Amino acid sequence: MNVGDKHYHTIWLNEDGRSVDIIDQRWLPHEFRIVTLKTVPDVAAAIRDMWVRGAPLIGVTAAYGVAIAMTDDASDENLERVWHELNETRPTAINLRWALNEMKRVLSPLPPPERAAAAYARAAEIAQEDVALNRSIGQHGLEVIRGIAARKKPGEPVNILTHCNAGWLATVDYGTATAPIYLATEEGIPVHVYVDETRPRNQGAQLTAWEMNGHGVPHTLIVDNAGGHLMQHGMIDMVIVGTDRTTANGDVCNKIGTYLKALAARDNGIPFYVALPSPTIDWTVKDGVKEIPIEERNGDEVSLVQGKLADGTVVQVRVSPEGTPAGNPAFDVTPARLVTGLITERGIADASPEGLKALFPERPV
Amino acid sequence: MNVGDKHYHTIWLNEDGRSVDIIDQRWLPHEFRIVTLKTVPDVAAAIRDMWVRGAPLIGVTAAYGVAIAMTDDASDENLERVWHELNETRPTAINLRWALNEMKRVLSPLPPPERAAAAYARAAEIAQEDVALNRSIGQHGLEVIRGIAARKKPGEPVNILTHCNAGWLATVDYGTATAPIYLATEEGIPVHVYVDETRPRNQGAQLTAWEMNGHGVPHTLIVDNAGGHLMQHGMIDMVIVGTDRTTANGDVCNKIGTYLKALAARDNGIPFYVALPSPTIDWTVKDGVKEIPIEERNGDEVSLVQGKLADGTVVQVRVSPEGTPAGNPAFDVTPARLVTGLITERGIADASPEGLKALFPERPV
Repeated sequence: MNVGDKHYHTIWLNEDGRSVDIIDQRWLPHEFRIVTLKTVPDVAAAIRDMWVRGAPLIGVTAAYGVAIAMTDDASDENLERVWHELNETRPTAINLRWALNEMKRVLSPLPPPERAAAAYARAAEIAQEDVALNRSIGQHGLEVIRGIAARKKPGEPVNILTHCNAGWLATVDYGTATAPIYLATEEGIPVHVYVDETRPRNQGAQLTAWEMNGHGVPHTLIVDNAGGHLMQHGMIDMVIVGTDRTTANGDVCNKIGTYLKALAARDNGIPFYVALPSPTIDWTVKDGVKEIPIEERNGDEVSLVQGKLADGTVVQVRVSPEGTPAGNPAFDVTPARLVTGLITERGIADASPEGLKALFPERPV
Repeated sequence: MNVGDKHYHTIWLNEDGRSVDIIDQRWLPHEFRIVTLKTVPDVAAAIRDMWVRGAPLIGVTAAYGVAIAMTDDASDENLERVWHELNETRPTAINLRWALNEMKRVLSPLPPPERAAAAYARAAEIAQEDVALNRSIGQHGLEVIRGIAARKKPGEPVNILTHCNAGWLATVDYGTATAPIYLATEEGIPVHVYVDETRPRNQGAQLTAWEMNGHGVPHTLIVDNAGGHLMQHGMIDMVIVGTDRTTANGDVCNKIGTYLKALAARDNGIPFYVALPSPTIDWTVKDGVKEIPIEERNGDEVSLVQGKLADGTVVQVRVSPEGTPAGNPAFDVTPARLVTGLITERGIADASPEGLKALFPERPV
């Protein structure tokens, strides 16, 4: 998508054919910084410390990490080592493991001297595939928005609530949850997006609001606490979120707080959709609440808030008393029973084993 | 309660017998500041700009505001004027209107020269009554905690989630939701409190965490998004919150986000209690969602976060892009059907017209 007048992806291979550049998302919206990842430790830090985030982008970044590793040492041992090193950076996002497995599947059969080139080729394909998947998700989600718009008075916007950032910054381009919103905007359907700020890391306030602003989508920032109230008062027409891992039975693991919004949507009869490319589906897991490991991140993410001072300096401030212990589970699981539909690249599936099986018959559920 | 070694109330009459001192809560937990309110505009600003907050404390502060007004001009016109000036400061908290009406009820029949003394006397009584009400609430709520503790293994804490600050800082002393917690702690029942940070103003992170710390109650700060996940995983035994206005049918208006926690409690079979002194009950309102006016506060409260820099300076930082519009509804309404019980000074009522009528038979419901 565009940043100013220039079109960007979130990650791209440099001219040296070896290192990759990323948008360092820790500084948005205050500063637009690009960082070069040259080594596997660079890539591991970028994922673990959330210079890049969002399940699809994490997957692509890891794929390039494997490619970088192959330029150093293309042995089986090193392939195994990089798989483990990168797999441990974030425990919840399934795309990470999917991308690492995919790289291993492609590289293992090859003689080591051919692996580096093949790795960069496959990483680039995964990135291109992500863009294509998101455009397809956008087309299917657009149908839902069109349907709601058709029941509105002319000019009345479709009010959409989203949580966290499942925007183009979470993918290579377009985003998952935002793809339908961008396509609706291109088509001239009036939409208005309520952006959950998404504590503790404020991905909504910092990233989604920045994206919406950059693409001229009318939006209002709200605290995570506000969505239920807005739904009670008829101010939300639909909810659409992304996911870090969706199970074979349709349970949705996503940013902490998603479950609360799904409960409120159900209580108020508002459709709750999840947008996801199929690499986000974990076909091995049946019960999301019981089986998905939830990353517990550092409590400092809760106690310290990053923002910009009036003079433009970006700083962190402590909001709680010194020494106050903080818990920081990064994700929660929304049970399938609360999900209206899973918007995939192949269409909208019921959040159920049968629904997913119907769209992905080649997968053993 | 204690601040360091000294016992404080949140508000007290000065030795001049005219002005009142308050704890200026805007600077907690970083700075403990006491401010003197000398005029009605001082009192109006203190309520409107949240130097004091919490429904019970707002009521007491307003009562002293009427008393201050009477020292200047004890006419009927001025009594009417101060009623309106203070009533407009916060639209949602019912205790504000209750206290203003109570002052008018006491003062109107008196000859003007007697009004100032009577006003200070009644304001002091209201403050003392608040302390007594909260101790009674604490005793009734303690029974609930005892019951949960009895089903735990020895030494295992009762895990309590609370939202916002319904602590002693929201009242004159003890607090509403915290009174049972403080009494349980005094009695040696192990409790552990999950403190919702409570965006946008972070009353949980700034005030409740500070209170818990001051009184040695084990606690963990969490973001507002986390409670549902903790409930899904059996980490919460009960929820207890305060309220700014509870209707005659048991609908509970409280800090924005309370409704989401009540939904999660219901979804996970966890008891959800509301602690309230009876002046918080609005006997004139039947449907809380439809009838209670919800204060829409300045969007800057969402966009700007206050905290402390490493050097100790208290500053505000912008978390969202410049110019991003923000919505800021300050309260929401939890329907009575989601409330396990209303803990009042007279006992625990069902959240229903019948439940409230049984405890308060003198009130026409």
